[in-house]
Amino acid sequence: MHPYELSLTAAASAIRARQLSPVELADSVLQRIAQVEPHLQAYVTVTAEHTRRAAREAERDIAAGRYRGPLHGIPMGLKDLIDVAGLATSASSRVRADHRAQADSTVAARLSAAGAVLLGKTHTHEFAYGLTTPQTHNAWDAGRVVGGSSGGSAVAVASGAATFAVGTDTGGSIRVPAALNGVVGLKPTYGLVPRHGVTSLSWSLDHVGPVTRTVEDAALVLTALAGHDARDPASLTTPATDHRPAAGTDLTGLRVGVPRTYYFDHVDPEIEAAVRQAIDQLQALGARLVEVEIPLTRYIQATQWGLMVAEATAYHEGTLRAVPELYQADVRILLEAGELMPAGDYLRAQRSRTLMRQEWARMLTEVDVIAAPTVPATAVKAGQETITWADGTDEGVSDAYVRLSSPANITGVPSLSIPVGHDTAGLPIGMQLLGRPLGENTLLRVGHVYEQTQPARDLARAA
Amino acid sequence: MHPYELSLTAAASAIRARQLSPVELADSVLQRIAQVEPHLQAYVTVTAEHTRRAAREAERDIAAGRYRGPLHGIPMGLKDLIDVAGLATSASSRVRADHRAQADSTVAARLSAAGAVLLGKTHTHEFAYGLTTPQTHNAWDAGRVVGGSSGGSAVAVASGAATFAVGTDTGGSIRVPAALNGVVGLKPTYGLVPRHGVTSLSWSLDHVGPVTRTVEDAALVLTALAGHDARDPASLTTPATDHRPAAGTDLTGLRVGVPRTYYFDHVDPEIEAAVRQAIDQLQALGARLVEVEIPLTRYIQATQWGLMVAEATAYHEGTLRAVPELYQADVRILLEAGELMPAGDYLRAQRSRTLMRQEWARMLTEVDVIAAPTVPATAVKAGQETITWADGTDEGVSDAYVRLSSPANITGVPSLSIPVGHDTAGLPIGMQLLGRPLGENTLLRVGHVYEQTQPARDLARAA
Repeated sequence: MHPYELSLTAAASAIRARQLSPVELADSVLQRIAQVEPHLQAYVTVTAEHTRRAAREAERDIAAGRYRGPLHGIPMGLKDLIDVAGLATSASSRVRADHRAQADSTVAARLSAAGAVLLGKTHTHEFAYGLTTPQTHNAWDAGRVVGGSSGGSAVAVASGAATFAVGTDTGGSIRVPAALNGVVGLKPTYGLVPRHGVTSLSWSLDHVGPVTRTVEDAALVLTALAGHDARDPASLTTPATDHRPAAGTDLTGLRVGVPRTYYFDHVDPEIEAAVRQAIDQLQALGARLVEVEIPLTRYIQATQWGLMVAEATAYHEGTLRAVPELYQADVRILLEAGELMPAGDYLRAQRSRTLMRQEWARMLTEVDVIAAPTVPATAVKAGQETITWADGTDEGVSDAYVRLSSPANITGVPSLSIPVGHDTAGLPIGMQLLGRPLGENTLLRVGHVYEQTQPARDLARAA
Repeated sequence: MHPYELSLTAAASAIRARQLSPVELADSVLQRIAQVEPHLQAYVTVTAEHTRRAAREAERDIAAGRYRGPLHGIPMGLKDLIDVAGLATSASSRVRADHRAQADSTVAARLSAAGAVLLGKTHTHEFAYGLTTPQTHNAWDAGRVVGGSSGGSAVAVASGAATFAVGTDTGGSIRVPAALNGVVGLKPTYGLVPRHGVTSLSWSLDHVGPVTRTVEDAALVLTALAGHDARDPASLTTPATDHRPAAGTDLTGLRVGVPRTYYFDHVDPEIEAAVRQAIDQLQALGARLVEVEIPLTRYIQATQWGLMVAEATAYHEGTLRAVPELYQADVRILLEAGELMPAGDYLRAQRSRTLMRQEWARMLTEVDVIAAPTVPATAVKAGQETITWADGTDEGVSDAYVRLSSPANITGVPSLSIPVGHDTAGLPIGMQLLGRPLGENTLLRVGHVYEQTQPARDLARAA
């Protein structure tokens, strides 16, 4: 086994026990990057020289007894919306060609303080405004989309080109590519992870969170990321806690909500079967299944787009006027559409969000978690624009990919996507666990318990 | 002296000492209403029968030893945006012709529980969307505007047609008519007084507060109104406190901010002279004057209108489409203009409000209160549309009246308007004291100290 194949948890154990040196791990992952990057294009920039220097520093520190914890010496990719002092934050856009970040974002500073070693900046759909990340290729089939917008992060983790990565999620941008590439993605509670120094898509919906190979890995990264920072006006003042799940595989007493509506409509039958099988597994582990009615479903799409389109256009107002030709056509058209949006539509979206939050809070008193598909379809072929459902209706690929993930952005509740198998084409399937605000530890426990009962997952073939 | 001439504080003392009965007081005020209402038109509805019944009940309760406190048996007017169970909330609009409130608003319920006796519902500029309240006449000169939108409340209190009243303030609607009619008006800190059951103009700027004859009276009413109610999403959870100012007239140690910019630009010279004289009086009482620079003044107007126009249109969307002809032309035009407003303008207004709040918070660390004119002009003639300033520039009457009061709505800081004399035409002049969020008690203390050093004010001639 090569070091790049180790999960974060396994690599951390080995480093701590001095069975693996951070330099050895970094070199292995950098070699893997060199091997797969021509096929996948997960990275905007690989900072190999910096990576080796940081790994040597970690090695020295740990050898000198200054071990900082489980992220110490672990190589990571950061989505290229996340500022790292001295590097460009390209947002995978020509608009940012001359960019250079003056200071670390809060999350980059926290990860650096925890000893994590930067491998480079991973690709995003341009400015996070899309669900496909067209520059990048799926880790399981290079002819298929990677999902987005944190596509580079998910592919890097899935293929062994990063031990973990950090992404952002405005409508599903961590969970969608995690599901399409067979890795774990966590969108935390709104406000739990500060966004200072992270390029905004839509400030009232934006979240930062981990992309990892296991649920336990996600818990380790979340523990490093979470905690108040007043420079993000939405940052919660909740005290920092350890998010690592306890041992044990008993789910007795847990109430798992199974949606009667919405989350299983227009969903690929192979996905439905895999998710229902995973839900049955939770029941076999002791959980009680409770049918739930998802509230206000007809407002979801209008609310998500109403908030996102208005806020994204406000953020890009200056550059859209100055250099419209530097944007990709799909993003430019969405931004221009936002200029025509009436204030009343934005206000209606704000108001329906308030109602949705109230109704979801009520629903989440009845159950502890809700289990549902992350996305209704596995990775589509690159360039495919619509999905045709069994009843003959067509749906845009982006609309489909955002449909099941956006409720957690609107309501701010946490959502953890975990792999629950593959379809007959060999493409990964994701299930999301949704919980109460600040209920991350419940989601992580359930995900971890499920994962322990499954066979170990392989890395993606990646070519 | 007739009982209707008594301040709330004086009437409460007399009632408590059994020198005055609530019935006697209510009858006196109802007679005064009958006398002045034909000239002033302060009321939409006078609930005389209910008033007498409630006064008799108060009389019985007090005689039986069940005295509830200083509002017990005191007759009041409520702006006709405030729901009282069983009565119409007309908002002074034909749109509400068939309205009937099912339940008391939070403030009506609190005042009723405190024993206050409802006289009736006072006129507002239609749906509070204007600064003149054209149905109603100024208490000092019936040929002049009363100000708005709480015009009826201010005139009723100024003329003896109510012992106190309650108004609402979205851009100055309590303080402007208070200033133009020579009474006291308090716009509390945003969120201190719950708005449940009060018709909204612009929910992020709306406030409810007292209109009274003295500062001490305002403190008594505020004490009854303030306190958390979860049914107003913006309601603060601050514990309820007694707002009555302590005795004494020493202001030693108090830092009074005197604006170097904005608040004395385009202000009538007689108003400037009266306000500066009142500020000198604060200095004579021990206060230290400190010049302050008002921040971000060029954003004030765009921020106030950007928020208000969008939110007002959202509130009226349904009726504006269904029955546009029932609105007065001025209000309908403003609402229709709101339909054309782009979402980006609203977002810019939200963002500049955030900046203004931060900068005002910084400024208010340098001083304890800021003293400034409430409005730049005394009451203009009914029908007058513009004010011409000394430098030859014209300004719309509503723009002028809202100009100095709206910063407190945008930033949410409390503002107390108190009378500081009359111009040579005999029209009242108002000075506002602005303070830190939840700094009401400081404003009330300063206003009360000032008031004690001034000769007693007469009621308005009112005809």
